[in-house]
Amino acid sequence: MKKISLLGSTGSIGKQTLDVIRSHKDDFQLIALSFGRNIEEGLKQILEFHPSIVCVESKDIANKIVNELPSHIKLVDGEEGLMEVASIAEADILVNAVMGSVGLKPTLAAIECGKDIAIANKETLVTAGHIVTEMATKHGIELVPIDSEHSAIYQCLEGDVEKEVSRLILTASGGSFRDRTREELVDVTVSAALKHPNWQMGAKITIDSATMMNKGLEVIEARWLFNMPYEKIDVILHKESIIHSMVEYIDGSVLAHLGTPDMRVPIQYALSKPKRLDLTGGKRLNLWEVGSLHFQKPDYSRFRCLYLAFEAGKAGGTAPTVLNAANEVAVAAFLNGKIKFLEIEELVERALQEHIITSVPELDEILAVDEETRNKVISYMS
Amino acid sequence: MKKISLLGSTGSIGKQTLDVIRSHKDDFQLIALSFGRNIEEGLKQILEFHPSIVCVESKDIANKIVNELPSHIKLVDGEEGLMEVASIAEADILVNAVMGSVGLKPTLAAIECGKDIAIANKETLVTAGHIVTEMATKHGIELVPIDSEHSAIYQCLEGDVEKEVSRLILTASGGSFRDRTREELVDVTVSAALKHPNWQMGAKITIDSATMMNKGLEVIEARWLFNMPYEKIDVILHKESIIHSMVEYIDGSVLAHLGTPDMRVPIQYALSKPKRLDLTGGKRLNLWEVGSLHFQKPDYSRFRCLYLAFEAGKAGGTAPTVLNAANEVAVAAFLNGKIKFLEIEELVERALQEHIITSVPELDEILAVDEETRNKVISYMS
Repeated sequence: MKKISLLGSTGSIGKQTLDVIRSHKDDFQLIALSFGRNIEEGLKQILEFHPSIVCVESKDIANKIVNELPSHIKLVDGEEGLMEVASIAEADILVNAVMGSVGLKPTLAAIECGKDIAIANKETLVTAGHIVTEMATKHGIELVPIDSEHSAIYQCLEGDVEKEVSRLILTASGGSFRDRTREELVDVTVSAALKHPNWQMGAKITIDSATMMNKGLEVIEARWLFNMPYEKIDVILHKESIIHSMVEYIDGSVLAHLGTPDMRVPIQYALSKPKRLDLTGGKRLNLWEVGSLHFQKPDYSRFRCLYLAFEAGKAGGTAPTVLNAANEVAVAAFLNGKIKFLEIEELVERALQEHIITSVPELDEILAVDEETRNKVISYMS
Repeated sequence: MKKISLLGSTGSIGKQTLDVIRSHKDDFQLIALSFGRNIEEGLKQILEFHPSIVCVESKDIANKIVNELPSHIKLVDGEEGLMEVASIAEADILVNAVMGSVGLKPTLAAIECGKDIAIANKETLVTAGHIVTEMATKHGIELVPIDSEHSAIYQCLEGDVEKEVSRLILTASGGSFRDRTREELVDVTVSAALKHPNWQMGAKITIDSATMMNKGLEVIEARWLFNMPYEKIDVILHKESIIHSMVEYIDGSVLAHLGTPDMRVPIQYALSKPKRLDLTGGKRLNLWEVGSLHFQKPDYSRFRCLYLAFEAGKAGGTAPTVLNAANEVAVAAFLNGKIKFLEIEELVERALQEHIITSVPELDEILAVDEETRNKVISYMS
């Protein structure tokens, strides 16, 4: 029985994590959870799973639900609360499914307590990959990916074969606008951008798919998760999203992970590995129904954000923090109708250009650069 | 340094095995080899690799080369000779790359001497799978596949996960005639049948690809190599032969092995595993150059031999021996212009129908049925 604490229980990954726990009650038990403001969903989850501790975004939210909770459940809030949930003694593994850089400190706290981390929070590795991986090594814990691409690679890597890998190949659907030229992107609407062809996901990540910034962030994640130089990470367009990613070995062998689009597969594997469990109600892949799979070289001038991510990754230091923070603010502005689609990449590029990189930043420098970048990008738009 | 004995050194797999050994002199050493009648090629190999023992098909061939050999090389012949090469004390691993049922006894001899077997000789597992696998378990040795499909599955299986596998999926190119209807097969010529779209192979296996008997034999091999019931083995048509085969797990994950068609990859992996070595001069897979991969459900009435193989496999006992022996005789007759293409399957089906199955045959019964079937099929044609 693995005991699990979950950050971000009411988001898409959080809910699917609870699905997995629900279908495998003999294997998994939820010990702790956090959510932000979705009181209705959060309360339902608490009453179903009876965690011993719950964290919400603020005192205000806490006050709204405190009377609805069974008395044995401890209620905490804010960043301190998140750290408490992440480092609760009984948990074996932390599922970090929060969005944004708020996931960073709780991850570090959990690593210090010796917990393995199932990680869906990209920002943690994008902005502080060197700190997180160094601390993970020091404490002997494992970072297990939940992203379908990284889980695919994780499953294709057989143990400690770092030297024998010649290339990681991340597949990319190309997002909602994969068949459009740059000219056709000038006036795209928010609702068009939110229609991802293969996956049902949150708004931020769906826009990131359309700009391919999502793939760029994944490239940076892959660099840290698998200790792989950028020169050995490739991206390939694969519109069906059936091959989730691949590993090429020095002998020319390529191992790939395939499946129907179902995030419960990587979530469940992150919790059950190295064992596999039945997937309740999952649709099996049938390749003769799919018929064909397509592959294309990505055009880095068409997908400027992907190019910027590779550049920021290679530049290293605080550059990925700037990339990520600028992108978050820009995507939020696009979703609120304040800027056009192609301005996302322009804002990110400008923020990167104006930034002076600190090469091996400490945590507080990263957090300062993150905030500074957000303010700067907001100022660009005003 | 792994020491290798090689049966069938002048065949296609044999020559590529020597290529692999040649490019990795620090990892592999050839200790012993056998060939049949190809004196010119065989002598060249002997003078290059200096094995300590050599076996040829007959006394006659031996007499022709004895004076050309350095005096420290022992020369043996025939079945007894093969057994001696297979069980030579210094070797760690036997590469069995002979064709036909002549490979069976040497394999058993090598297993008894505790050698791992890298197996390209289908007949060994098809006709005597229960004996070979039982003896392998008893002596604690491993059967490592060399066929690209089985090597793919072997590489996708991560250790001892028998229970967690829901399905093995063997890919099939469909062979030279994959796009023809049955009607269009009636009058096909030998030379047309010998044009395989993706792989350069020997004549027998190329015809077996065209009838899809090759895939049928592979299904039976897979049943024994991976201890998998036939109900969990599927065949899918995939004309590009880029995905070499796949494993589906109970959680819906599918792991696949991909690559350019190069038999040195599975041969080398069988020798180097669990390590991987560089592949000298191998062409890397580039999926965006390939562009697309196609999949189709095989039509079992179109590919009658594949159907017969599944049926013979499920019937078990001596049925696969009959399938294989009848097919060998029929394919030889087709190659010699004695019968038409579709008569191959007719002869195999008739042999199976007339056979009374022995359910758990001993080795001598298998060999008797093998011979009896060959004679019977010859009599059908006269």
